[in-house]
Amino acid sequence: MAAGFAGGAWYADDRDDGAGAARGPTTYPFRGEHQAGIVTPAQDRLHFAAFDITTRSRAQLVSLLNAWTTAAERMTRGISAGPVGPTEGAPLVPPDDTGEAIGLAPGGLTLTFGFGPGMFRDEWGRDRFGLADRQPEALRDLPHFAGDQLEPARSRGDICVQACSEDPQVAVHAIRNLARIGFGTVAVRWSQLGFGRTSTTSTSQSTPRNLFGFKDGTANIKAEETADVERFVWVQPGDDQAWLVGGSYLCARRINMHIETWDRQGLKPQEDLVGRTKGSGAPLSGGTEFTPLDLAMKGSDGPLIPVDSHVSVVSPARNGGVRMLRRGYNFVDGSNALGGLDAGLFFLAYVRDPRTHFIPLQSAMAGHDAMMEYLQFTSSAIFAVPPGAAHGEHLGQALFT
Amino acid sequence: MAAGFAGGAWYADDRDDGAGAARGPTTYPFRGEHQAGIVTPAQDRLHFAAFDITTRSRAQLVSLLNAWTTAAERMTRGISAGPVGPTEGAPLVPPDDTGEAIGLAPGGLTLTFGFGPGMFRDEWGRDRFGLADRQPEALRDLPHFAGDQLEPARSRGDICVQACSEDPQVAVHAIRNLARIGFGTVAVRWSQLGFGRTSTTSTSQSTPRNLFGFKDGTANIKAEETADVERFVWVQPGDDQAWLVGGSYLCARRINMHIETWDRQGLKPQEDLVGRTKGSGAPLSGGTEFTPLDLAMKGSDGPLIPVDSHVSVVSPARNGGVRMLRRGYNFVDGSNALGGLDAGLFFLAYVRDPRTHFIPLQSAMAGHDAMMEYLQFTSSAIFAVPPGAAHGEHLGQALFT
Repeated sequence: MAAGFAGGAWYADDRDDGAGAARGPTTYPFRGEHQAGIVTPAQDRLHFAAFDITTRSRAQLVSLLNAWTTAAERMTRGISAGPVGPTEGAPLVPPDDTGEAIGLAPGGLTLTFGFGPGMFRDEWGRDRFGLADRQPEALRDLPHFAGDQLEPARSRGDICVQACSEDPQVAVHAIRNLARIGFGTVAVRWSQLGFGRTSTTSTSQSTPRNLFGFKDGTANIKAEETADVERFVWVQPGDDQAWLVGGSYLCARRINMHIETWDRQGLKPQEDLVGRTKGSGAPLSGGTEFTPLDLAMKGSDGPLIPVDSHVSVVSPARNGGVRMLRRGYNFVDGSNALGGLDAGLFFLAYVRDPRTHFIPLQSAMAGHDAMMEYLQFTSSAIFAVPPGAAHGEHLGQALFT
Repeated sequence: MAAGFAGGAWYADDRDDGAGAARGPTTYPFRGEHQAGIVTPAQDRLHFAAFDITTRSRAQLVSLLNAWTTAAERMTRGISAGPVGPTEGAPLVPPDDTGEAIGLAPGGLTLTFGFGPGMFRDEWGRDRFGLADRQPEALRDLPHFAGDQLEPARSRGDICVQACSEDPQVAVHAIRNLARIGFGTVAVRWSQLGFGRTSTTSTSQSTPRNLFGFKDGTANIKAEETADVERFVWVQPGDDQAWLVGGSYLCARRINMHIETWDRQGLKPQEDLVGRTKGSGAPLSGGTEFTPLDLAMKGSDGPLIPVDSHVSVVSPARNGGVRMLRRGYNFVDGSNALGGLDAGLFFLAYVRDPRTHFIPLQSAMAGHDAMMEYLQFTSSAIFAVPPGAAHGEHLGQALFT
């Protein structure tokens, strides 16, 4: 047991700001049928990292997945990344934990891992680790969409880790310690912090707001909608590769919002672009936040919910009944060259099959959504998210056996 | 009163994560003898923005300071930035508030304003707004220090705003709405988010940890040390310009930490670099966190607190008794080109006179602190922070009259 970690928990009883309740001792099990951090009630803070694999050795890669599994299980339990706690060990040997999370509650930390197309084939299509025949058909770089102005340095990646916690320092600590463990095997390709969740993945959560000032995630699939979770989130037997059953696909897109331009719009044009009211989030066809859309209801000037509004374009009714589970986060990354804020939404969606559950919706949005005028996509990545690790197994073990 | 804002407070009683206690209805008065956000107990989250003034009109600048004062007072009270709330007003007119803070508690929001050298003279030394003779002698760009690798695009600035809150979305909302109000008069030059405070400005707060994993801020001046606050933080009558009495100087420095290299160090070398233990934060000369340093106490191999350790180099004993009030924040801004995290500490210090209370310490650190091997300074800025606005006055009014 690490010094400074009492009883296996980082929960500090001397916090001065009453934050214990919010960033409290909640923990989610790391192992299970599915990985945590997908249908888990979305925590408030995100640190997402995409890694390049820098080794050519399959054994070394497997060894890392073993080490990561052990460390991730420890950290999500609220203890140090390795057995030698941050203030323990031989004087000249670096401890197994960097220490900045001492005294912090885990805040429901989840760590969710995914494998990118680059884990299977290099950029020339060559088999990298003897896994090429295990690559799912659906795990291909996303196509180019209208509005994409992707920055290569923060797109793609061979492995991703999504760290979510109520406390940003806990999420950062986890990514940092995983990166440290991976030194020599992987290197951070890009990473993204998010400070406010924009989605609600449980009916127990109230709907937060994105930087357009609107509630976001009202129509999101909730963990409690178990039939839709099976249908739209988890890969099912027979879908594709057997190793991915119980897993999912993660589509990650960094969306810059032109907030300065948006802020010049009147309230009504903003609501027409979204298709909902800014206050309650009710559809423009009436009711309250969770009232179903009535896309046909006519006003004096066409449908009350404009056909090019965001909610209309991506509605299940216009997309073969498809729903998505999103876990997005707001971000502000300093300023841009135009004297504005480099701000937007880091979009994360977990889908059963990107070919049917994501790409068509993104295409519809790129082609028809009036809100696109205010958006610019600067990063894009896709990952196959293996199922949860069983006891005694490492993450993604079925892929390697 | 804005729709969605009940009783003048944003405190939402339907928050699902119990965060109300932490990010609760605490408010600090915007007006007063001194600006809030300096000795105020450091909130957990920061959004700091530096602006360039883009107008040539003194009247327009004064008009902005008036508008900012009104908006800042409103937002720190927990109400919308302007009288037309985010979901109110004429349909085609943009509301006075962007809306993403609806339902969020103010979380002790403070907004602290400072004026850079560029407000007084342009880069050729010309008087910009008839204020040149009011420029304090001490308000000059900081000199170049060893270890400085400054990025011009995120250094300097004519005006700064420091937004601190327990909720990052509240801090971001405030900066965004101030930037929006300033459109045409100022433009964001650079901005910086911080997710974890590294300083404690009140004895009521426990000491947080920086990304080296060490407690930071143990020796910081606390609000309760009123004599030292007067002596080291507030500009006193006769110091320099009369308009700045009751104000302070803000030295802002973005410090990249080479955390990957740091993490390779053993525990003992790390502690020797800092001069304190990693666990309790006690000086290496013994005792507990708040035990005074004994720089003379000998071990088997020289002083127990090495002479080139950080705490020794910046100790008041070696710097003419000078102490600083710091309000730093940890940051991670994605990744760097070396496959590591772009991480570090955004250093903010409020000092009575930078020539005697900051520059000598920074020089000593740059020249003698062994920790410098792990640091790189990528941004530098200095601002004169006017006193608090009295009732009916705008911020910095004494400067313009």
